[in-house]
Amino acid sequence: MGAFWAEARARAAALDAADPLAEMRALFHLPEGLIYLDGNSLGPAPKAAPAEVEAATSREWAEGLIRSWNTEGWFDLPVIYGDRLAPLIGAGPGEVVVCDSVSVNIAKVLHAALNLRPDRSVIVTEGAGFHTDRYIAEGVAGTRSGIRLALEGRDAPRIEDLIDADTAVVLVNHVDYRTGAIRDMGALTAAAHDAGALVIWDLCHSVGAMPVGLNGAAADMAVGCTYKYLNGGPGAPAFIFCASRHLSGISQPLSGWWGHAAPFAFEPGYRAAPGIRKFLCGTQPILSLRALKPALDVFDGLDMNQLRAKSMALTSLFIELVEATCGPFGITLASPREAGLRGSQVALSFTQAYPVMQALIAEDVIGDFRAPDILRFGFAPLYIGFAETCRAAETLHRIMADARWREARFQARHAVT
Amino acid sequence: MGAFWAEARARAAALDAADPLAEMRALFHLPEGLIYLDGNSLGPAPKAAPAEVEAATSREWAEGLIRSWNTEGWFDLPVIYGDRLAPLIGAGPGEVVVCDSVSVNIAKVLHAALNLRPDRSVIVTEGAGFHTDRYIAEGVAGTRSGIRLALEGRDAPRIEDLIDADTAVVLVNHVDYRTGAIRDMGALTAAAHDAGALVIWDLCHSVGAMPVGLNGAAADMAVGCTYKYLNGGPGAPAFIFCASRHLSGISQPLSGWWGHAAPFAFEPGYRAAPGIRKFLCGTQPILSLRALKPALDVFDGLDMNQLRAKSMALTSLFIELVEATCGPFGITLASPREAGLRGSQVALSFTQAYPVMQALIAEDVIGDFRAPDILRFGFAPLYIGFAETCRAAETLHRIMADARWREARFQARHAVT
Repeated sequence: MGAFWAEARARAAALDAADPLAEMRALFHLPEGLIYLDGNSLGPAPKAAPAEVEAATSREWAEGLIRSWNTEGWFDLPVIYGDRLAPLIGAGPGEVVVCDSVSVNIAKVLHAALNLRPDRSVIVTEGAGFHTDRYIAEGVAGTRSGIRLALEGRDAPRIEDLIDADTAVVLVNHVDYRTGAIRDMGALTAAAHDAGALVIWDLCHSVGAMPVGLNGAAADMAVGCTYKYLNGGPGAPAFIFCASRHLSGISQPLSGWWGHAAPFAFEPGYRAAPGIRKFLCGTQPILSLRALKPALDVFDGLDMNQLRAKSMALTSLFIELVEATCGPFGITLASPREAGLRGSQVALSFTQAYPVMQALIAEDVIGDFRAPDILRFGFAPLYIGFAETCRAAETLHRIMADARWREARFQARHAVT
Repeated sequence: MGAFWAEARARAAALDAADPLAEMRALFHLPEGLIYLDGNSLGPAPKAAPAEVEAATSREWAEGLIRSWNTEGWFDLPVIYGDRLAPLIGAGPGEVVVCDSVSVNIAKVLHAALNLRPDRSVIVTEGAGFHTDRYIAEGVAGTRSGIRLALEGRDAPRIEDLIDADTAVVLVNHVDYRTGAIRDMGALTAAAHDAGALVIWDLCHSVGAMPVGLNGAAADMAVGCTYKYLNGGPGAPAFIFCASRHLSGISQPLSGWWGHAAPFAFEPGYRAAPGIRKFLCGTQPILSLRALKPALDVFDGLDMNQLRAKSMALTSLFIELVEATCGPFGITLASPREAGLRGSQVALSFTQAYPVMQALIAEDVIGDFRAPDILRFGFAPLYIGFAETCRAAETLHRIMADARWREARFQARHAVT
């Protein structure tokens, strides 16, 4: 295989040399020698992040104290950062707010959708999507009388087949967390609208890695996370999108004071803010929120189509190299083969996926394992290059060729996240 | 008044010299020359906080990346910090979890209480408590069929008069955010239990400033904030307490993956964690969460009764000095006069409270204004001394005596938090 890898390395080097995004990598802290293919789980720190968080801690909190709520505009950060995030998802100003966790936000938008369709009783969602979406939908359905779930994979093979005149809302992932398969946002939204239903898109695995066109697809609402491809830091606050056409008539029951029309007027009853702020609930974690600023700065002026082109090239190269060299060991592709249907990740299927990933990590190639048999690799086009993609494939091949993953030290399960 | 203030200053100096907690102040960053009487809104930064947040950002996130979920135990921080917080509120291990915002947590515990009392239809709460409590209760009642609110001040003068056989849960503040009045936790909990109702205590304005005895009072659930007297940083995650006797049978509908019994098993349906973790929902903001560690360190081994004694002495001194010197200008006490009934704050009533507070802030005495006519001063016994308490009263007296608050620059309202 020496000649194969020599040729692959040469190709990768040429691709890196021609990469118009190559210089973006310098904006991130990436530990020396590590090939980090897990930015779809936790993005790396922008180099500007520590100084920003330090300023928020030592200057804004410690020195500014309570005054920083006014002088630093802390109270408005959720909508300021929301407006900055909006262009990355095809949203307009005043349609996005950054707050809380994805799970809490899913509860808000599901209730909001059900409130808009009071005569309908079904939440349609994925049986195999990221589990918190389904768990929260269960919680929402259990709280309101007469609401039930219809699940793709359990009640019908395709989500489109579940949408009918009783469907209030369809909650669906844009990119599958496991396989990386992309849903057609325009087609599914149109199908739901044809049936009079609303659609909520979960953008956790697409935002920041590809263009997302919420308003172009006439999407109703969306949620997403900022700590994966957006690199906002561990557990950074999530976001909510609500199309402006819905904003005046919509309501959600996590009606905390930050969503009030006049939060400092201490009115006796709840009166929702007129715009996107009505999706806010309580006080936001400012230190974590402030780390989002340098993360969003990175995307300023970036061409998301260029990002997408590089993402497809990276994943295609990885698939080609792995299939050619690891196919004989029984590793198969679990992601869509067609690049246009695939997010910025590659999922490989192998019965002993767990020890193989442990062996890769021991070689400083970090991806992740998803039960029961998936090796998952994220290729964030902002900072991952072609040479390291080639090196990752070569490392996997070496681990398979010398069966290193069979070593006892890689077999024992420990808690994984 | 020269002799009056000279005598007051001498008394305050003597009190400081005898203060067993005086050395605690050195653990906090307090800007030079500032008298910070707003720690009941946002506590100051422990001196150890910037280094801790820097470690979380540069070492744990930037260098550790996804591995820190395991190596740094990020996933367990909500229960680890919950257990550390427990002794401050009279709770046991496994009864407290740190997560989300107070508002979101109120929704969880209200739903949980209603689930435990399915045959009852009333949430009893305060008409004049902190507004988010009431707003969230409205949202919860509006989501479930047949649930209504009964409000102290609207439906009856005393909350005790609203509790009857139809009361599912009483949601009440331990210390009133405005006046600082303390509710009798034991008596109100017993009254509710006598009627078969549950009680949720909101500890935002007591935790960290006085001993709180949840289990001693047989309280059912509680919520609280960590950024006031606990000094956890702006918007630091809040907490939930649930008495261990309820944990196995209780449920709440914000059923996100962090509350699942096996969050990484990717099970199709939601199965709640057996213990306090079932109150978790989504991923927590780690940078903000990590700032809590140095904040909790400060309380290690602290005698909360000693803290309470100092708190009462501080507020009593302030009231005495203000009443003696500012009473003639029309400033009156809005807090309970009896120290034992008063939290760690003093509320003063004055028709022109807003410009007076602006004038005080211009003199580096920071308290806050609460509409329509309250001057509110927090006396955090951990870091506030008697001399500065005296100086704050003297500054207020000077502003009243020379009517400086009438200057135009103090009149214009701007956004306050």
